[in-house]
Amino acid sequence: MNTPATGPHPARYPGAAAGEPTLDGWQEAPHNRWAFAHLSEMVPTAAVSRRDPATPAEPVVRLDALAAQLPDLERRLEETYTDALLVLRGSEVLAEYYRPGFAPDDRHLLMSVSKSLCGTVVGALVDDGRIDPARPVTHYVPELGGSAYDGPTVQQVLDMQVAIDYNEDYVDPASEVQTHDRSAGWRSRRDGDPADTYAFLATLRGSGRTGEFQYCSANTDVLAWIVERVTGMRYAEALSTHLWAKLDADLDATITVDTAGFGFANGGVSCTARDLARVGRMMLDGGIAPGGRVVSGDWVRSVLSGGSREAMTDKDFTGAFPGGSYTRQWWCTGNERGNVSGIGIHGQNLWLDPPTDSVIVKLSSWPDPDTEHWHRLQQAVLLDISHALDTL
Amino acid sequence: MNTPATGPHPARYPGAAAGEPTLDGWQEAPHNRWAFAHLSEMVPTAAVSRRDPATPAEPVVRLDALAAQLPDLERRLEETYTDALLVLRGSEVLAEYYRPGFAPDDRHLLMSVSKSLCGTVVGALVDDGRIDPARPVTHYVPELGGSAYDGPTVQQVLDMQVAIDYNEDYVDPASEVQTHDRSAGWRSRRDGDPADTYAFLATLRGSGRTGEFQYCSANTDVLAWIVERVTGMRYAEALSTHLWAKLDADLDATITVDTAGFGFANGGVSCTARDLARVGRMMLDGGIAPGGRVVSGDWVRSVLSGGSREAMTDKDFTGAFPGGSYTRQWWCTGNERGNVSGIGIHGQNLWLDPPTDSVIVKLSSWPDPDTEHWHRLQQAVLLDISHALDTL
Repeated sequence: MNTPATGPHPARYPGAAAGEPTLDGWQEAPHNRWAFAHLSEMVPTAAVSRRDPATPAEPVVRLDALAAQLPDLERRLEETYTDALLVLRGSEVLAEYYRPGFAPDDRHLLMSVSKSLCGTVVGALVDDGRIDPARPVTHYVPELGGSAYDGPTVQQVLDMQVAIDYNEDYVDPASEVQTHDRSAGWRSRRDGDPADTYAFLATLRGSGRTGEFQYCSANTDVLAWIVERVTGMRYAEALSTHLWAKLDADLDATITVDTAGFGFANGGVSCTARDLARVGRMMLDGGIAPGGRVVSGDWVRSVLSGGSREAMTDKDFTGAFPGGSYTRQWWCTGNERGNVSGIGIHGQNLWLDPPTDSVIVKLSSWPDPDTEHWHRLQQAVLLDISHALDTL
Repeated sequence: MNTPATGPHPARYPGAAAGEPTLDGWQEAPHNRWAFAHLSEMVPTAAVSRRDPATPAEPVVRLDALAAQLPDLERRLEETYTDALLVLRGSEVLAEYYRPGFAPDDRHLLMSVSKSLCGTVVGALVDDGRIDPARPVTHYVPELGGSAYDGPTVQQVLDMQVAIDYNEDYVDPASEVQTHDRSAGWRSRRDGDPADTYAFLATLRGSGRTGEFQYCSANTDVLAWIVERVTGMRYAEALSTHLWAKLDADLDATITVDTAGFGFANGGVSCTARDLARVGRMMLDGGIAPGGRVVSGDWVRSVLSGGSREAMTDKDFTGAFPGGSYTRQWWCTGNERGNVSGIGIHGQNLWLDPPTDSVIVKLSSWPDPDTEHWHRLQQAVLLDISHALDTL
């Protein structure tokens, strides 16, 4: 496999050379000054809890407000492998659930709900005039010339309307999805793998067709690359600057990083349920967070009003939501409530219910990544809670 | 290189098979329920700060209390690449310093100060009667039969009085120190490397001699293995249960983990300066922390009164401290003040000054790991502060 040269990319610390420090060099000066304070970026780390692990987090079950209308909600949450559920109406936490062993201040992997966060950062930079969504991707990232991204605009990538040869077969090591994971450090590397996620993205090929929905995680990483290019910041830093630092979040989020230090924007963010709900709150507040405006009201309205129904090709999604569409890294149901959601495999949802000004966060660990069975159960929980909120 | 079978080792979650989940399996059920909440153990992660990264931590310089006697202290801290300094007398923070960009709630790698934490956990288990320091190591870890640890007692390992063939040449990939790092995930793996730190430890050979000081990081990892064996907990969990959870710490500590999930006890702990000072406070309080007794008064007295001077072979240390010794994973100066310290390469110190009931934490990033030049400057700072405390 060819592994194209890309970059330069934002430095890990001011003055660091591209790609430095490596796993074999972080202990040496001058890298050690940065690395000793950022070791989790180089080496996997476990928490040494300041709470006694012999008394693990008790389950938190505060579902009383919904109990009259949804008496079997707790059973349904257990059935759908829920780790955390949070229902936020306005600024009031109406209901909350954490399974035994998962505490309110534990972080949970968002999988592709991470994409909606990246879309929001792109939105902020569009508002600032730093990204023009009508421009071709290669205007910002010329290294993608000759790839599937040579031609499509930023908006088409935001809306996942780019035809890409991307095999989603998780069992085939030659598939793009597995190579993507390995390039990002989510699986063990193999000989011949691209050096990092940037190099992987540059290997992708496509038909050049645009305008039809094709869900592809690589699109989000391309957006993150554009974010880095126009801000000069690492994606993790841009995500903080343009979103996380404005939320009045309880805790830092985390994002997995590859050997180049590039954050895995399409699926690698972990945070608490409460902090994720703050992202939804900002959207329902027209783009305004406690720390200031994140995105324009226009951007939020574009998300909440949905994308192109004609472009939508996902039959599973339109089977559940006939008016469904996808825009700006959000799934838009097109139902009468106008529900919009960030969605991640294995049961992650950041669900917006505009009629009741409510956010529903559900973080789960379904045994299957993406089957119709689990989606149906999960959607029913989210819709039933939304309807219950009408009369509360 | 032979890579002996070891184990079973404590499971990552109840019911997990040995070594599970792997980097290639964490996304699958049933592992995903654990992994989605512990992703930093599998994949390197960066923080997405809840503070705006464009306004990095201002330097904190509160050295006034010491300024009259040490007017050039700030310059000396800068000269010795100090990231954080904290002087705690009784329960009062007398002085504190954080370099620009390093915040009071940032964690810093402790390097071998981590060893003193592990020694403390062993002490707690000795007090509980779960570890008998007079027993041979192989009583607890039979997998070490035939290795350098076949014969020595736990006490000899605690005091680093075991002769081991352990080449400290950092440039030679065949050296034990490099293989140790690679087994622990601190450097890139090479073909033929031991599967994990446990397997590496079992490959070590020695002369069988005991009773003479030989500093060797492997000893601490053997202690952590014993801790796991007698508690049934992963080392990270035991460190929490027996130390961290009793400190009333501000934040969780972190510890790097290898592919088996084994914490790197000899050098992989990161924490804040303030939380590390709490460990010193507990020692000066005779083993008692806010959350209860950590180790017995006898254990603390054994540390503070020092180890065998006859056994001490480190000429650099006795050059600086003629009465110097090493016991229970602490360096004991044997000076008139009775200073005792956890010491890590690149300038990490958890320094106890019993006459003034004070703890001095200094976390640094010297450009060299372990040279006489830096040790001399660092020791002078620590001693000068200790003396200054006499008249404050």
